[in-house]
Amino acid sequence: MLVTAASGVAPRRRDLDFQLFDVLDVEALLHLPHFAEHDRATLAGVLDAAYEVAGDYFSPTAAELDAFAFRLENGEVATPDSLKAAVRAYVDAGFMGATFPAEHGGLQLPATLSSAAAIVFTAANGSANAYAFLTIGAAHLLAAFGDDEQRERWMKPMVEGRYFGTMALSEPHAGSSLGDITTRAVPAGDGTYRLHGSKMWISAAEHDLSENIVNLVLAKLPDAPPGVKGISLFIVPKFLVEAGGARGRRNGVHVTGLNHKLGQRGVVNTVLTFGDDCVGYLVGAPHDGMRQMFHMMNEARIAVGAGAVALSLAAYEYSLGYAKERPQGRRLTDKDPLAPPVAIVEHADVRRMLLKQKAIAEGGLGLVLYCSRLVDTATASQDARERDDANLLLDVLTPVAKTWPSERGIESTSLAIQVLGGYGYSPEYPVERHFRDQRLNPIHEGTTGIQGLDLLGRKLRVNGGAGLQLFLDAIGRELVAARDVEALREETTALAAACEVLATVTRALLDAQIDLGAERALAESTAFLDAFGTIAVAWRWLAQARVAATAPPDDFYAGKLTACRYFFRYELAPAVETLQRLAALDDLIFTVRPGML
Amino acid sequence: MLVTAASGVAPRRRDLDFQLFDVLDVEALLHLPHFAEHDRATLAGVLDAAYEVAGDYFSPTAAELDAFAFRLENGEVATPDSLKAAVRAYVDAGFMGATFPAEHGGLQLPATLSSAAAIVFTAANGSANAYAFLTIGAAHLLAAFGDDEQRERWMKPMVEGRYFGTMALSEPHAGSSLGDITTRAVPAGDGTYRLHGSKMWISAAEHDLSENIVNLVLAKLPDAPPGVKGISLFIVPKFLVEAGGARGRRNGVHVTGLNHKLGQRGVVNTVLTFGDDCVGYLVGAPHDGMRQMFHMMNEARIAVGAGAVALSLAAYEYSLGYAKERPQGRRLTDKDPLAPPVAIVEHADVRRMLLKQKAIAEGGLGLVLYCSRLVDTATASQDARERDDANLLLDVLTPVAKTWPSERGIESTSLAIQVLGGYGYSPEYPVERHFRDQRLNPIHEGTTGIQGLDLLGRKLRVNGGAGLQLFLDAIGRELVAARDVEALREETTALAAACEVLATVTRALLDAQIDLGAERALAESTAFLDAFGTIAVAWRWLAQARVAATAPPDDFYAGKLTACRYFFRYELAPAVETLQRLAALDDLIFTVRPGML
Repeated sequence: MLVTAASGVAPRRRDLDFQLFDVLDVEALLHLPHFAEHDRATLAGVLDAAYEVAGDYFSPTAAELDAFAFRLENGEVATPDSLKAAVRAYVDAGFMGATFPAEHGGLQLPATLSSAAAIVFTAANGSANAYAFLTIGAAHLLAAFGDDEQRERWMKPMVEGRYFGTMALSEPHAGSSLGDITTRAVPAGDGTYRLHGSKMWISAAEHDLSENIVNLVLAKLPDAPPGVKGISLFIVPKFLVEAGGARGRRNGVHVTGLNHKLGQRGVVNTVLTFGDDCVGYLVGAPHDGMRQMFHMMNEARIAVGAGAVALSLAAYEYSLGYAKERPQGRRLTDKDPLAPPVAIVEHADVRRMLLKQKAIAEGGLGLVLYCSRLVDTATASQDARERDDANLLLDVLTPVAKTWPSERGIESTSLAIQVLGGYGYSPEYPVERHFRDQRLNPIHEGTTGIQGLDLLGRKLRVNGGAGLQLFLDAIGRELVAARDVEALREETTALAAACEVLATVTRALLDAQIDLGAERALAESTAFLDAFGTIAVAWRWLAQARVAATAPPDDFYAGKLTACRYFFRYELAPAVETLQRLAALDDLIFTVRPGML
Repeated sequence: MLVTAASGVAPRRRDLDFQLFDVLDVEALLHLPHFAEHDRATLAGVLDAAYEVAGDYFSPTAAELDAFAFRLENGEVATPDSLKAAVRAYVDAGFMGATFPAEHGGLQLPATLSSAAAIVFTAANGSANAYAFLTIGAAHLLAAFGDDEQRERWMKPMVEGRYFGTMALSEPHAGSSLGDITTRAVPAGDGTYRLHGSKMWISAAEHDLSENIVNLVLAKLPDAPPGVKGISLFIVPKFLVEAGGARGRRNGVHVTGLNHKLGQRGVVNTVLTFGDDCVGYLVGAPHDGMRQMFHMMNEARIAVGAGAVALSLAAYEYSLGYAKERPQGRRLTDKDPLAPPVAIVEHADVRRMLLKQKAIAEGGLGLVLYCSRLVDTATASQDARERDDANLLLDVLTPVAKTWPSERGIESTSLAIQVLGGYGYSPEYPVERHFRDQRLNPIHEGTTGIQGLDLLGRKLRVNGGAGLQLFLDAIGRELVAARDVEALREETTALAAACEVLATVTRALLDAQIDLGAERALAESTAFLDAFGTIAVAWRWLAQARVAATAPPDDFYAGKLTACRYFFRYELAPAVETLQRLAALDDLIFTVRPGML
């Protein structure tokens, strides 16, 4: 290798501090009683620890974990020792319980902080972070819907990092359409259930990283109504557990196959089969599984967006470091073939590719951290109205925060490959891994198509469209704040105009769902979602630029201002054009017959 | 697997026949003396043979070849038997010599036909086709620049498929900047040379598919002027060959390492080292290597575009077949959870993803076949002016035909993955391979950034901008032909307007190269190239739609008309917006300093 590797840890600490403390004013959360135990030093310490564990344990094993050939032997799957060490360091530093209330053994930290830490971990090694991510999600679900006994027996060891969790939804024939699952749960007469059936694409349902594995499984009771209304949620552990916490017998849930994947290869992916006296415990009420799972799913969707941001940031940082070091060619105005070559960052097209990556990655970072900030408000605000508003705005932004960074992240990580040229196409460099890992994000936890239908067909219709108004109001507050910043006049004008178009087009599309029917009106939900996302990110770029514009000038702030301007001219403008096209309710796509394809 | 695989061969024969015979009127070529030996039946027979060999030999081994772990053992690399069989079937069917003149042992077929056949082979198995592609390119170069003895000794066995070829340009420190290569060629005093140095990323420089391997190597003579003007071209065979054709000693060219890649893994990629009495033979005059290599390179660039089209077509066909078979979910208007699920092609967003793939893949097919048609005119027309015009227009279209299908092909193959959902992310299905293979195309044979500079900084400036005029004239002829087709009025109006914008913006950017300097004026060459490409493909879509509009209506023609309309509304319109932005010569990207990134 001619060019040395960058540290492998992203985002730059200065950017993360800027976004958390200067743009989102995370410190203000510390005035709320829920977070009153913490101060700015605690928060900084959490970030210090995240960078340290990510740099020391996550980053060094990323390539090894990606290349590791998982094998199923006697129903078990061994993982590399370096992964075990990374996961232990993560647990020991307290990250598994970061957001859990103190009463559940957690640190009761703001979600904004733990989301930032998760981004650091995922940027360093996305596969390694996935095991923790699934565990935290499962534990959160039990915190919300489990009974005291379930929380004590299953959730507490997850918060402590002794048990790990999974979410088991998909089946071979049912991914997007969960109403069609066929896994059955039969009452055993003693309050427990016996599960039958199998699940597909289940991450981390077998490994040697924890004492036990707690699968949260969607299944149907014998008397279940058809469709999604008949889904219940069950705890299906790998090992049963005695009342005192001692490990009991091996439960009848077995991994019967491993799936291979284009990326995120370090997360073992399984076919999970229930049978052979497989015990499950019902969570909450019968037939309430979809609602419960969506609690976890919404959290997971924002986490997918955050993970997508992390991969884009990692690829951006790596390709930027490479571009500054790699000599190749001369400036176009330099006709002397004997002149020494320049670093490729000197070529305008390379700068374009880096600037676009920056605009996508740091803009996406602003959006996902904003969403986590809403989680904190929804959790900890003492004003009920503020909590409700935060929850509704979060509902609207969830499909956006999940999808925009995922879809644009493919483009962004692809540009990182392009900056490296042939080397970018080689597994000796990490960017092709980022690109492969990224490709999953528009698929799992609800595909992009599903997210578009969720936004336009559901979220924006709730409460007579109150969610859109909250979104526009939030942008309006930013526009007021930026009003007097002369350097941002072009951007504030453009964003205000974009919001008007968005309001008009959304109204037209909501009306059309009634006038023309859902199929026709929702045929271009994906394009709508992308344009909506671009406006959301433009808003978060404006917030960054406003802070940058009023800070003492330096290259960091100049970069923020330029990336914001770039985003508005190169990304927001086309998105507004798209919205205008959507307003015409073109029936072209809707009328295509399969035989014409 | 729940869903059966499609045949693995693309494009559909009907589409290829439509494009070749109905749109491009390839039969008209047969009136030229150069092609007079052939008739329509010959051409159809060539396509029959391509589909047969691709279906029987190329497609079945694609997955195996992708997964094959090449190893370097004692300087040699073994390949799978199924690849040997595929390559033999290809040679036996006469494809290696398809375009070579009869006097060189070839079939003297139109390039348009051999390009179409290459697309069929690449769609079935891109890696397998690469060995032939490199050999044909090397043989073409010797046909153009070798002397009689070199043609007899090296080219003829390549045309016969006994020797295979390579092109060895890049070095570890010099890819895009070939002027900086350091491989040396020292005269041996007997008319031969001794090579010293090494090459990087050389495809197919070691394998067991042929009796000998003929490397065409760029190197510098001791008295070479600096930069690209000091590059010479050498034949550096694996085995020396006696005057009568008997194999001589092993030459001192050795593979000293293998490179691994994200995709196109079935093409063994090597580090090539010269030394140890390594004999080379100078081709043509000293210091004339760049010009000679560009002869091969231009052909290779169009072939890369054709290969990109092939991958997009293959992924499109597979995902279409899957979408028609895979049941999942219900129509949005169907609220009965007990109703049977529909095939996913019934969902509007899936149709959108398929229609977009069709628009990219079949539009790209139209463009690359048009370019090959220009090659035939340039080769065989009896009108000198027509030959010159074809050559100049081909020069302009080469960077476009190389880049547009490559860049858009990433998007297109990514959509194929998305149609399959989780299954698309699994190597059990071919679309993730198409996506990985595609990612190389914007990199090799000149990156996208290099192509943009080539188009705007060089090709459009030749002969006072005569190339652009030829392009606009060709579009103008299509607009005249489509003038009376009522169904295409929207499209003809839009394309005419787009051409006006293109003419204005191109002039502004050419002027700016003088007024503002090359760096500033060329800073957005990549965006210009993409917009130019979109106009070119819109033109080729209009040509397809015009023929379709006047044919007896059926689903095939209706699909062409709809895909054309889609392309104009969803792809051409934004491209025109981009051009208008470029006209403002925004200096945003140009002024970014590395420290701001």
